[in-house]
Amino acid sequence: MEAREVLEKVKNNEISIEEAEKYFKKEPFEEMGYAKLDTHREIRSGFAEVIFCARKADEHLLKIFTRLYEQDGEVFGTRASEHQYELICEKFPEVVYDPLSHILKIEKKDKKRIGKIAVCTAGTADISVAEEAAQTAEYFGANVERIYDVGVSGIHRLLSRLDTIQSANCVVAVAGMEGALASVLGGLVDKPVIAVPTSVGYGASMNGLSALLTMINSCANGIAVVNIDNGYGAGYIATQINRMGVHQDE
Amino acid sequence: MEAREVLEKVKNNEISIEEAEKYFKKEPFEEMGYAKLDTHREIRSGFAEVIFCARKADEHLLKIFTRLYEQDGEVFGTRASEHQYELICEKFPEVVYDPLSHILKIEKKDKKRIGKIAVCTAGTADISVAEEAAQTAEYFGANVERIYDVGVSGIHRLLSRLDTIQSANCVVAVAGMEGALASVLGGLVDKPVIAVPTSVGYGASMNGLSALLTMINSCANGIAVVNIDNGYGAGYIATQINRMGVHQDE
Amino acid sequence: MEAREVLEKVKNNEISIEEAEKYFKKEPFEEMGYAKLDTHREIRSGFAEVIFCARKADEHLLKIFTRLYEQDGEVFGTRASEHQYELICEKFPEVVYDPLSHILKIEKKDKKRIGKIAVCTAGTADISVAEEAAQTAEYFGANVERIYDVGVSGIHRLLSRLDTIQSANCVVAVAGMEGALASVLGGLVDKPVIAVPTSVGYGASMNGLSALLTMINSCANGIAVVNIDNGYGAGYIATQINRMGVHQDE
Amino acid sequence: MEAREVLEKVKNNEISIEEAEKYFKKEPFEEMGYAKLDTHREIRSGFAEVIFCARKADEHLLKIFTRLYEQDGEVFGTRASEHQYELICEKFPEVVYDPLSHILKIEKKDKKRIGKIAVCTAGTADISVAEEAAQTAEYFGANVERIYDVGVSGIHRLLSRLDTIQSANCVVAVAGMEGALASVLGGLVDKPVIAVPTSVGYGASMNGLSALLTMINSCANGIAVVNIDNGYGAGYIATQINRMGVHQDE
Amino acid sequence: MEAREVLEKVKNNEISIEEAEKYFKKEPFEEMGYAKLDTHREIRSGFAEVIFCARKADEHLLKIFTRLYEQDGEVFGTRASEHQYELICEKFPEVVYDPLSHILKIEKKDKKRIGKIAVCTAGTADISVAEEAAQTAEYFGANVERIYDVGVSGIHRLLSRLDTIQSANCVVAVAGMEGALASVLGGLVDKPVIAVPTSVGYGASMNGLSALLTMINSCANGIAVVNIDNGYGAGYIATQINRMGVHQDE
Amino acid sequence: MEAREVLEKVKNNEISIEEAEKYFKKEPFEEMGYAKLDTHREIRSGFAEVIFCARKADEHLLKIFTRLYEQDGEVFGTRASEHQYELICEKFPEVVYDPLSHILKIEKKDKKRIGKIAVCTAGTADISVAEEAAQTAEYFGANVERIYDVGVSGIHRLLSRLDTIQSANCVVAVAGMEGALASVLGGLVDKPVIAVPTSVGYGASMNGLSALLTMINSCANGIAVVNIDNGYGAGYIATQINRMGVHQDE
Amino acid sequence: MEAREVLEKVKNNEISIEEAEKYFKKEPFEEMGYAKLDTHREIRSGFAEVIFCARKADEHLLKIFTRLYEQDGEVFGTRASEHQYELICEKFPEVVYDPLSHILKIEKKDKKRIGKIAVCTAGTADISVAEEAAQTAEYFGANVERIYDVGVSGIHRLLSRLDTIQSANCVVAVAGMEGALASVLGGLVDKPVIAVPTSVGYGASMNGLSALLTMINSCANGIAVVNIDNGYGAGYIATQINRMGVHQDE
Amino acid sequence: MEAREVLEKVKNNEISIEEAEKYFKKEPFEEMGYAKLDTHREIRSGFAEVIFCARKADEHLLKIFTRLYEQDGEVFGTRASEHQYELICEKFPEVVYDPLSHILKIEKKDKKRIGKIAVCTAGTADISVAEEAAQTAEYFGANVERIYDVGVSGIHRLLSRLDTIQSANCVVAVAGMEGALASVLGGLVDKPVIAVPTSVGYGASMNGLSALLTMINSCANGIAVVNIDNGYGAGYIATQINRMGVHQDE
Repeated sequence: MEAREVLEKVKNNEISIEEAEKYFKKEPFEEMGYAKLDTHREIRSGFAEVIFCARKADEHLLKIFTRLYEQDGEVFGTRASEHQYELICEKFPEVVYDPLSHILKIEKKDKKRIGKIAVCTAGTADISVAEEAAQTAEYFGANVERIYDVGVSGIHRLLSRLDTIQSANCVVAVAGMEGALASVLGGLVDKPVIAVPTSVGYGASMNGLSALLTMINSCANGIAVVNIDNGYGAGYIATQINRMGVHQDE
Repeated sequence: MEAREVLEKVKNNEISIEEAEKYFKKEPFEEMGYAKLDTHREIRSGFAEVIFCARKADEHLLKIFTRLYEQDGEVFGTRASEHQYELICEKFPEVVYDPLSHILKIEKKDKKRIGKIAVCTAGTADISVAEEAAQTAEYFGANVERIYDVGVSGIHRLLSRLDTIQSANCVVAVAGMEGALASVLGGLVDKPVIAVPTSVGYGASMNGLSALLTMINSCANGIAVVNIDNGYGAGYIATQINRMGVHQDE
Repeated sequence: MEAREVLEKVKNNEISIEEAEKYFKKEPFEEMGYAKLDTHREIRSGFAEVIFCARKADEHLLKIFTRLYEQDGEVFGTRASEHQYELICEKFPEVVYDPLSHILKIEKKDKKRIGKIAVCTAGTADISVAEEAAQTAEYFGANVERIYDVGVSGIHRLLSRLDTIQSANCVVAVAGMEGALASVLGGLVDKPVIAVPTSVGYGASMNGLSALLTMINSCANGIAVVNIDNGYGAGYIATQINRMGVHQDE
Repeated sequence: MEAREVLEKVKNNEISIEEAEKYFKKEPFEEMGYAKLDTHREIRSGFAEVIFCARKADEHLLKIFTRLYEQDGEVFGTRASEHQYELICEKFPEVVYDPLSHILKIEKKDKKRIGKIAVCTAGTADISVAEEAAQTAEYFGANVERIYDVGVSGIHRLLSRLDTIQSANCVVAVAGMEGALASVLGGLVDKPVIAVPTSVGYGASMNGLSALLTMINSCANGIAVVNIDNGYGAGYIATQINRMGVHQDE
Repeated sequence: MEAREVLEKVKNNEISIEEAEKYFKKEPFEEMGYAKLDTHREIRSGFAEVIFCARKADEHLLKIFTRLYEQDGEVFGTRASEHQYELICEKFPEVVYDPLSHILKIEKKDKKRIGKIAVCTAGTADISVAEEAAQTAEYFGANVERIYDVGVSGIHRLLSRLDTIQSANCVVAVAGMEGALASVLGGLVDKPVIAVPTSVGYGASMNGLSALLTMINSCANGIAVVNIDNGYGAGYIATQINRMGVHQDE
Repeated sequence: MEAREVLEKVKNNEISIEEAEKYFKKEPFEEMGYAKLDTHREIRSGFAEVIFCARKADEHLLKIFTRLYEQDGEVFGTRASEHQYELICEKFPEVVYDPLSHILKIEKKDKKRIGKIAVCTAGTADISVAEEAAQTAEYFGANVERIYDVGVSGIHRLLSRLDTIQSANCVVAVAGMEGALASVLGGLVDKPVIAVPTSVGYGASMNGLSALLTMINSCANGIAVVNIDNGYGAGYIATQINRMGVHQDE
Repeated sequence: MEAREVLEKVKNNEISIEEAEKYFKKEPFEEMGYAKLDTHREIRSGFAEVIFCARKADEHLLKIFTRLYEQDGEVFGTRASEHQYELICEKFPEVVYDPLSHILKIEKKDKKRIGKIAVCTAGTADISVAEEAAQTAEYFGANVERIYDVGVSGIHRLLSRLDTIQSANCVVAVAGMEGALASVLGGLVDKPVIAVPTSVGYGASMNGLSALLTMINSCANGIAVVNIDNGYGAGYIATQINRMGVHQDE
Repeated sequence: MEAREVLEKVKNNEISIEEAEKYFKKEPFEEMGYAKLDTHREIRSGFAEVIFCARKADEHLLKIFTRLYEQDGEVFGTRASEHQYELICEKFPEVVYDPLSHILKIEKKDKKRIGKIAVCTAGTADISVAEEAAQTAEYFGANVERIYDVGVSGIHRLLSRLDTIQSANCVVAVAGMEGALASVLGGLVDKPVIAVPTSVGYGASMNGLSALLTMINSCANGIAVVNIDNGYGAGYIATQINRMGVHQDE
């Protein structure tokens, strides 16, 4: 829930002054010793704090997960391992784990989704990163259209789905190897393209560095790039853009 | 003029069927031998074609400039040299050249500007790139707020301008050297941050590669990156986002 | 003239035994002290020796040029400067210089050209490299079709010329910046694509290294890559392939 | 089967109109959700689609393998693991797996092979990549001559096999460490050399990047390079070239 | 014990001439065949020799550990494995192992600690490196204040702890990903900042190289950088600086 | 003048309350449009703002120089060109320019200098960077001992000056090429060594990157590194450390 | 046995004409299908062929090992694994394996050793590479002096062994991390220094690349460099040089 | 003159005790403020000090040149410019300058030359570096055989000169572009090969880095590498080796 939404609800008597007060009176962060939970993040950015699970100690993960659950009633974790799923599952049996995207989450039911983001991949091996982007965007309230395996070596596959892609508020282009997909998409749509290089490839792909360079040097306009395999980051900024586009259509 | 605008104007009788027809009937590109002018770009993307002047032969530049002027009544060129300004000036005395941003343009009068984009720089040496971004956005119809010299080594300067920055639809963060500005901005605003690394710096800055890596690895969310010194690219995508935000506020 | 041609001409009484003998009896190389002219190259490879003019001392260039002219009646030099043109021109007024491709040559009249090579560029700034490839291929006896400015950011331009490209025996794809053109072409034709990265670009293009990586990592098949800006090398291998394709059609 | 072959067979009454129709009427691709099988590839390129097995999920691999088998009656997979072999073997006991090249295939009997490709390696450790190239070329219908362990540190080994190498339509040069083999071969033959850098080496070989640079910078002509360890890509383009050379000799 | 301390104690009759003699008469190093223990290091530098455990053979580690224990009555080892802990523990049951920092040590009781060093981390994953720095400094006699998880994406967390940080004689800034923390700290304090890039991150972080470059290019003053993950090195130089600052306050 | 000095002077009646008030009441920065002068820097860090002259426009440089002169009565500029010297000299004839270090300054007379910093270079070509460090430290009030041309290829030269080096509070090691000087110094002194890689060298020195890597990987302790050619940065942090050491001796 | 030695022995009636004939009549290489044993190597270079065991298939290793043993009566293998030792040991129980250097060998008894090579290491972790160099040199007939753990951070350890080092015909300098040892040695001896960078280190050592760059950029003369961890290569060239120096002293 | 020569001459009454004393009594270095002339170098290394002219200030160069001339009666400078030649020529009209190698020297007449070094280049553009190596070796007393333009793309040129190359005590291999020459030479000779990568090339040659990597990764034995374009370093170490080989033959 964004700050403005809270204020609007107060104005419309949808929530009480006390509830709003509770929202704004949160300490800006919660000191946990090994971590400082950024409890003000949602007020500041419109997005709740999310857990980057990789490398977290079991004890720390469990505490942070619990704390965020108590606060928000839902939790979203990225880069979680099978082991971490089992750990959380013991305490929160309702937790859901997707081994493809490595997302671990408890999500509130019946959340409204708005607008449209098109998530495209060059190949099938890019899908795990694309799913991180897509599920992030969905968690934060966006509708997502998945268009997978439309790499430039068979461009008719991409062209056949152009209508869907062009109707989105934002396009996420996920590609490894030479990463040319972003440039082709950039030339075909009039909305921002968020390019995600992936570590898919071998040899001179240098774990995605080559795809990153391709996307950064794109000759097409309207493209900006996030880190290699950073599906979460792409889903996040795509959601920001989608929110603007959605309001626009209302 | 975007395609939708044309259609709306037809509906509202603001332009004739013939004028609209002329807009849509343009050949998708115009063959000039050494170049193929992408005359459909505006229909496809909502942005007119722009000239990247660097490395263009005098003869080619003049012809392309002339052709675009005939078509649109205004022209926007980036990375132009003093010499190219003089060349164009002979034929088009009304052309304007800014030696700081290296932009060469003829712009229609009284164009309406909408929304707000905040263009921030870390230092004064980053201003030339920032101006390329700012003037690009202005040419394409956005209001731009300039917040210069707010690098992280004196963070109170940035914090003092936070209200202005937070009220923009999109923030452009221009920084060389270590490029940390983007991360700090990303943590403070709830709108997309387009990060532009610059070649400002020396030694291990490696002509901007270091700043690029900083921005790509940002720990903050809502950040996406364009090429080193690519002010134009940042201005372009910021304009796309601003348009969505602007419609939103109407 | 290839070895086989000489032998066929002997068989057909087109040239005398003595002339053929002279062709084969050449010393394998000619010692010039600072250089060893590879006079057997044509016998071994079917291509006469060519001069890489860059960095050659005036005196050396003149002697080598003269020696090759005496031997073959024509000479082909790459990467020649304006100054080198003037130097050679004093002694050989018939020499021709192209300031775009930096080719300096004396070419026999009415040479027969065979087959077809398609030379494509992503942008106009890539044309100087493309011309080096095209003129090399023409000098060695190939027909060349030039398809310039068909970069992937406006893919309709490329698609409009697809028939011509698909009818060639070999496609040369010349592109700087992100170099995505090669991958798209690779997916559209059934003949080998020789990819030439160029140093066109700025920032993270790293003088063509980025385009080189893109092309090496291409997800499309039938693509092989030469050095950055190496138009000559691409024209050479394309000619080898074209010769095979041409014989095929006879 | 290439498109032209189909047409020629129709003309010669070798196949019925209906069969030809079936060949051309295939959908351009087959949507499988997680993948889009490029069923038109053979028409477009003369090569059937091949499976890059690495990273494919078991379920996906099995479905794609099955689908391609149904379509073509043969299947060719690269970079397959022992585990994937066992997976496919359960359903297709006739599948053949080569643990050296990691190729997994079902191949039609008595396929005709034409022309000649010479596949050379610098050392014995390069053989696994060379076999990927050789078996790819054989699958697509080329005769292959293997000349292994002829690295430049004992050049008499290479020179002793020169006749065989020079008689091929295309030479594939596979080398790791410093990768000098390609340059030496390029100077000795008059046909195209496709250079494949391998990740064989240690220290400053940087997993093949050093060999890749050597090959890209080759002082010899007629050389073009594919990705590190990309035996498949080299076998593919060598087959394209060999087909042209074969037609030539008929 | 530093040389000056020894001399002062002699002067004050705190230790006998003989004890001081023993301190200074140590051979400059002790030959162990596979190693040369630098027994003069403490005289020369004021810091006892420390064991870098990684890659040490069991037999060697045990001997060196024993030898240093005999000499100093305490031992400090970095980058020790669980296995090495067990090895040493058999002979020295009093040894202490911290699996987070991988420090293995026997430390004298009741050592006096002086001054103050602030050790800050950007995230929780940086804590293992930070602990290596903090415990090193503590072993060598400094008071350490830990300020963890104060990365720049939520800068209010850092600002809330500014008083503590500003009161230290030296600040250690530990950060991975984009490493921007050092620059922000450098602008806020008047004491030296020792920056430690960590290998925390993924993709273009290139195992800490990106954070290293960020810190080296910092636009703020008073920052110097040690190797990636080199917590020990940072703790060492911070202790040198802290000693100077402490004397200053006495 | 540091904040503490001001307060002590107030206490000792050396300055009036009004003067102290003026010192603290300065705006935190002064907005100049293209720049924000960080006028609080001295209060915050104990060092006055300095001008990085490179790339500054004439008009901007002059204004900033003037403004800082009005405020502090002295100005220190680094990386100034001959042209910039002439520019400033017109208005401030007392300005002093050193073409070796490119420092441009007006300095108050009879400033007290304290402590000792040893600035060492490996070769003579490193002296320009060393002078930037030395003169920076002198400007900020440190005594500097210059020990030049003591590179490790003739280590007796370094050993002959060891006494001087060991008596300093901080050592600055300036070296290009392989940059080994820092490691040798680190093993010989008990005070912090600030290492400055220089761009001196050729070939694989890669403009100082190689020396930077050497220094970052140093096997000696007590070493921290600043950017390539960053003499100013080294002089700054050495001054911070020297101040602590000096107080210590009082 | 070198060719000259054979000839001298013939002249001195130490071996029969037949034995000498057998030595020279060997085929230049022995075709084994997957490998071509370079049986002429000893005649050409004075060094018998050696086996690089890493990555060799069991079957191949055993055959090559057997073949070389049959030919020379001794075999020298580098980079052998524990498993390969067991494999060879079954057939050749006299084989000796050193787990530190990974050398696997059968060596003739009572081989004469000549001259002197000094093998120095910076630290103890470099010893495994140093032993590969030392044992290679010993196998090929050189006396070796080992001087380990004399890195530049405690330079008195190196200086104490200078006499031994200066009396060698060739010095091998083995160092990881910053690799400064080679430069210091180069300045202290009048014989060639062969520098071996090692992969010892972490962070910015980039697996030895940093040490390699240090050594290549050395400011000292008389230094040449081999690949990272290439102890064998260093031992080989040092033996070549030592042989020349030994003859010199006879 | 080497130390041993001096002593032998004393023994043989060729020089007086006083002259020998003067040789040995030189101060180990001569302090010139901006430089420390390493006057003991010849005693320590057998090679007189040489001037690296690049970047030296006029005044410094003249003084150092003069000082060395006074001491040795001859001087050798590398990387000198035309301007520096004119500077020295005014005072020393007998100075000789070679614009190809950029060597500036005064050399004693009738110096004896011994042994043989073979200096080979791949192309003609590598000759300037090769001449630096050759003239360095000649100045220090070696006979040099020049074998230029024998790159691997026409390997018959190299093979035709094999006898000469094989008879040298040391081979210097100078090559740019892909640098394959060193590997081929290493496989053909039984003496050390000193490899010199050059900056000749373009594109992915990265100013010689690619050739350096090739040479470092060489599959041939007996090769060690110096810095890019470091002809002097190669000539120096080749002279060291040649001296040993020459003594051997006496």
